[in-house]
Amino acid sequence: MEELVGLREGSSGKLVTLQELWTPCPRIRRSIQGALEWLKERLFRVGEDWYFLMALGVLMALISYAMNFAIGSVVRAHKWLYREIGDSHLLRYLSWTVYPVALLSFSSGFSQSITPSSGGSGIPEVKTILSGVILEDYLDIKNFGAKVTGLSCTLATGSTSFLGKLGPFVHLSVITAAYLGRVRTKIIGESENKTKEMEMLASGAAVGVATVFAAPFSGVLFSIEVMSSHFSVWNYWRGFFAATCGAFMFRLLAVFNSEQETITSIYKTNFRVDIPFDLPEIFFFVALGAICGILSCGYIFCQRMVLIFLKANGFMSKLLATSKPLYSALAALILASVTYPPGLGRFMASRLSMEEHLKTLFDNNSWALMTKNSSPPWPAEPDPQNLWLEWCHPQFTVFGTLVFFLVMKFWMLILATTIPIPAGYFMPIFIYGAVIGRLLGEGLSVTFPEGIVAGGEVNPITPGAYALAGAAAFSGAVTHTISTALLAFELTGQIVHALPVLMAVLVANAITQSCQPSFYDGTIIVKKLPYLPWIRGRKIGSYPVSVEHFMNSTLTTLAKDMPLEEVTKVVLSTDVNQYPLVETTQSQTLVGVVKRAHLVQALQTEPSSWAPGKQPCLQDILANGCPTQPVTLQLSPEATLHETHNLFELLNLQLLFVTSWGRAVGSVTWVELKKAISTLTNPPTHK
Amino acid sequence: MEELVGLREGSSGKLVTLQELWTPCPRIRRSIQGALEWLKERLFRVGEDWYFLMALGVLMALISYAMNFAIGSVVRAHKWLYREIGDSHLLRYLSWTVYPVALLSFSSGFSQSITPSSGGSGIPEVKTILSGVILEDYLDIKNFGAKVTGLSCTLATGSTSFLGKLGPFVHLSVITAAYLGRVRTKIIGESENKTKEMEMLASGAAVGVATVFAAPFSGVLFSIEVMSSHFSVWNYWRGFFAATCGAFMFRLLAVFNSEQETITSIYKTNFRVDIPFDLPEIFFFVALGAICGILSCGYIFCQRMVLIFLKANGFMSKLLATSKPLYSALAALILASVTYPPGLGRFMASRLSMEEHLKTLFDNNSWALMTKNSSPPWPAEPDPQNLWLEWCHPQFTVFGTLVFFLVMKFWMLILATTIPIPAGYFMPIFIYGAVIGRLLGEGLSVTFPEGIVAGGEVNPITPGAYALAGAAAFSGAVTHTISTALLAFELTGQIVHALPVLMAVLVANAITQSCQPSFYDGTIIVKKLPYLPWIRGRKIGSYPVSVEHFMNSTLTTLAKDMPLEEVTKVVLSTDVNQYPLVETTQSQTLVGVVKRAHLVQALQTEPSSWAPGKQPCLQDILANGCPTQPVTLQLSPEATLHETHNLFELLNLQLLFVTSWGRAVGSVTWVELKKAISTLTNPPTHK
Repeated sequence: MEELVGLREGSSGKLVTLQELWTPCPRIRRSIQGALEWLKERLFRVGEDWYFLMALGVLMALISYAMNFAIGSVVRAHKWLYREIGDSHLLRYLSWTVYPVALLSFSSGFSQSITPSSGGSGIPEVKTILSGVILEDYLDIKNFGAKVTGLSCTLATGSTSFLGKLGPFVHLSVITAAYLGRVRTKIIGESENKTKEMEMLASGAAVGVATVFAAPFSGVLFSIEVMSSHFSVWNYWRGFFAATCGAFMFRLLAVFNSEQETITSIYKTNFRVDIPFDLPEIFFFVALGAICGILSCGYIFCQRMVLIFLKANGFMSKLLATSKPLYSALAALILASVTYPPGLGRFMASRLSMEEHLKTLFDNNSWALMTKNSSPPWPAEPDPQNLWLEWCHPQFTVFGTLVFFLVMKFWMLILATTIPIPAGYFMPIFIYGAVIGRLLGEGLSVTFPEGIVAGGEVNPITPGAYALAGAAAFSGAVTHTISTALLAFELTGQIVHALPVLMAVLVANAITQSCQPSFYDGTIIVKKLPYLPWIRGRKIGSYPVSVEHFMNSTLTTLAKDMPLEEVTKVVLSTDVNQYPLVETTQSQTLVGVVKRAHLVQALQTEPSSWAPGKQPCLQDILANGCPTQPVTLQLSPEATLHETHNLFELLNLQLLFVTSWGRAVGSVTWVELKKAISTLTNPPTHK
Repeated sequence: MEELVGLREGSSGKLVTLQELWTPCPRIRRSIQGALEWLKERLFRVGEDWYFLMALGVLMALISYAMNFAIGSVVRAHKWLYREIGDSHLLRYLSWTVYPVALLSFSSGFSQSITPSSGGSGIPEVKTILSGVILEDYLDIKNFGAKVTGLSCTLATGSTSFLGKLGPFVHLSVITAAYLGRVRTKIIGESENKTKEMEMLASGAAVGVATVFAAPFSGVLFSIEVMSSHFSVWNYWRGFFAATCGAFMFRLLAVFNSEQETITSIYKTNFRVDIPFDLPEIFFFVALGAICGILSCGYIFCQRMVLIFLKANGFMSKLLATSKPLYSALAALILASVTYPPGLGRFMASRLSMEEHLKTLFDNNSWALMTKNSSPPWPAEPDPQNLWLEWCHPQFTVFGTLVFFLVMKFWMLILATTIPIPAGYFMPIFIYGAVIGRLLGEGLSVTFPEGIVAGGEVNPITPGAYALAGAAAFSGAVTHTISTALLAFELTGQIVHALPVLMAVLVANAITQSCQPSFYDGTIIVKKLPYLPWIRGRKIGSYPVSVEHFMNSTLTTLAKDMPLEEVTKVVLSTDVNQYPLVETTQSQTLVGVVKRAHLVQALQTEPSSWAPGKQPCLQDILANGCPTQPVTLQLSPEATLHETHNLFELLNLQLLFVTSWGRAVGSVTWVELKKAISTLTNPPTHK
């Protein structure tokens, strides 16, 4: 109608073009366009790639949820098979063991056949990548398929293999982040930029943790603590955004799938809120932290020793190198046989899944008190209403079961970590810690059945709170992180034990950090990945150490006035991948860097084009188009070790040249830094 | 008895020295000594100064608690006076107003007479100090007394002046940390070290936040987000340790003083745990975040404009410069008159203290629904059981009271921030946000009295949850932080709303960060403190910008072969405080830095000692003992803006020299970086 009016008006007045006909109200349109442009500009000011971060979060949440869904079906099928197969012991044993053996050997064979780097947790490698080292193929997309399939198989074995999801999922998330980063580069058309890439990878790590546990806060903090030693608030905000998107999507899917009525935490607890614990219990929490710290030292040490043994032992290393599926099958058979419920498994609650382990361990009630007078009969099937009964075998009592669990799982966990499959090692450690805590809590509840503070209202001790503290403290100690405390709160949806849990985690960390490297650092050391150690303790004595004390001063420089013969000789006799370029042999003034590959290429081209008569020198090659890079940052010999360490960590450097008065006098790489730091911590005895 | 036996045995055998007599069992003693030494070494490896961190935490907790205790007494006295003074309006008005007027003018006069820098929050200055700038006297111990007294007086005015404790307490804590750092330097006998000092100050900031709110997690994160743009995991761990000690001590004192039965959070809430919110409510939480973001932009803008107006306006700036107590008294009079309960105060719940404000706002029940049918009578005194009635004036209804509170407190808060007294501005903002959230929550609970999801169990909407989200989102937006979400959980002891609150905070932050600087940055800008801006949005265009584009290339260098006359001329004509020293005028090879003060001193000493005949040059002075410093780090013109920015932020630098081929070609300071960054964000129009 309006258009018709416009047409009539137009025909009576001036000529109406078709353009005007289709675009009525140009002024309003323009202002709307302007407003949209303004909005777009505002949105983009927050960060040009927030929609990529959002996509990353949502994508990983979808993958995580889909994996959980598929794994759930497989686990249910196994349970059904085991239940329905009849009472014959042989059949039951076979149905219990064949499943994990098949899954683990397939997981191992499949993932190793696609890419040999897909085994293990992946966090050590991600840490190395985030520190600036380029690990070839490690972020390749073909890793993704191998890792997803392998991890699903691993997790489908449930509590038999007792392995988790966190590490590989962080790796998957970082692969996705790298891929999205490349997509962004193509869409925006920018040139590739290392800083931007690293920012994206760091967010990927945070998303990985957040979408496994639906815990954005601890996702960001845990990934920072584990992966880096310095971080910028900018990355932290980006991580939060991506992690929140991921966690939200992950929980939203659970609601849409009618698993839950609304968005809540995964392992909801029900601790008392008004008086969660008596004040003197703080001491026991701190003691629990100390126990967890000591046990984690033992665990890390044994785990590393076993890894080293496997590498050193001829037979084992050969087996691992040639027949990985066989090794996996053998290990799976041992694990499955030990956990066979009618056998030893009944003394270690092996009929429960890992989720059920955690849910029962965080239970409010004291099992020891409940089974004190009348021990309930052993149910033929786990009773969904009273899953905790699995922890109270009538012959063994609660304490026996918990202690047996701790003893057996200690070596089983170490055995499981040696299987070359994609698997996470955080969740088992978390559960192990919860069992330690539960044991102490049950003990206390039996010792003080009326609560600790006498008089007034009775506040019985909650063993579940100790399980929570133990889980946070043990996993924090093993990984050298504090944010596991926050993770425990986000997982359970309650934060009433904030201070005692935090204190337990701090104590456990203090003990472990002073005795052992973290689980991930230990793996880095065993795998011989490049790795820049911490300056431990920051001793006062470390502050005056300056670059000249530890730099590599035998620097092979190439001078511009060097005759070509000599250049060739240098290139042939050394195999570094770049050479510092100096002005003249005499002045040694650093002017840039020339890559070995470029130099070799230039040396191989025809030397005839140079001016005859004059002896050709390096300058001629450079003038002929051999590219050189500038040196953006130069150290001086007076810079301190701490400054240099900071620089390497923050800027993800691999090499810095040291100049004095413009002259190139040396270089510093990780190797020199490592040596300098190890000299600090273990000073030579002939001081 | 044992000694006697020992003596007898000795006399029968060989001679017993007194030494041996007093030191029986030398072998056991030695092994105990060895074990102690080992333990000491282990303990010290964690960090050489952890006991100083512990002392810092405990000390600040004691001070915080003592202040709260003193303030509580004064507030109770005021309440008692106001209650008992009779019904005469004049007397009541006087008793209501004279108290804050006297306290605020004393606070202003006292603190300003001791040190003029004690006013305001202190966080902007601490931020500047932590970025490496030395602010004279700002960490002096005399500030401490002024700030403690002033802050106590300010807080004793309660909700009349509506000011908080956080900012000044962070300042106090940093002062204490600096002092303890000096003590440590003396005890250990090390040389002073800037990095160590900074580490201690950073922990101080974390302790400040943690001991005010008893919230170690958010204490550490908030202090990091507000104060720095880069941080090391090392500092974060130290911060956690100190903050945990502080928070524990702070809450322990409350238990010992029988205020509480055990350690719990400060503003305990009682939200439903099983189904805390219906899923569609997420939208309202996000909308609340957007509202908070927009309002916070308005608040920050108005606040900055008023500060600028006060500086620009002749009369006001004169009043503020000469008669600060008078200005404070006038402002206090206005604030107290407006909040006078029988007057306007009854429409804005002014009879409640700030703690009571928060406690009531986080209430579970919907006030609007409760007062819908029968509006309860207005109590003559606040009813301790039903404090929330203060928010429901019968004439105004709940909504009227909340809206009136928001409108009035908007300008009152801005007025309060202009008073030159030590005061924190975080808590008022937190409460303001809670009121915004409560308003939305009450509106929703009236719109959907049966909950949003129809069918099944009825889940009524909890307005308190919106208050929580609003508080976190508004305070997060004003301060540009995300950890306020965590603070909200730690304060209330519940974390069930983790995702919705985090989403609200993220949305609010996205809006505010793209439009306005943070509250603290705004103050830094108005106060003209040195300040290195962010690289906003990290536009792709910012990556190729390199140092040569923005460096200061008019560098005044001093060459070693410069005649002394020329040196004198240079020194007289410029007033930088250090000069780059180059080898020769021609080569311009950078060899070090010479301080202007040293040079002036050296130039003034007798020139007769130099070799006669030859014209004296700079080299002679240097050889004669004028000290020079080495240049530890040199930039090259090809380094990028981002790298340089990172370096300045991480290493707390003030100046870097740029060298090309060893030649000093320019320098970069904050001024150049700031200019380069502002060109990025507001590119010149004549592109």
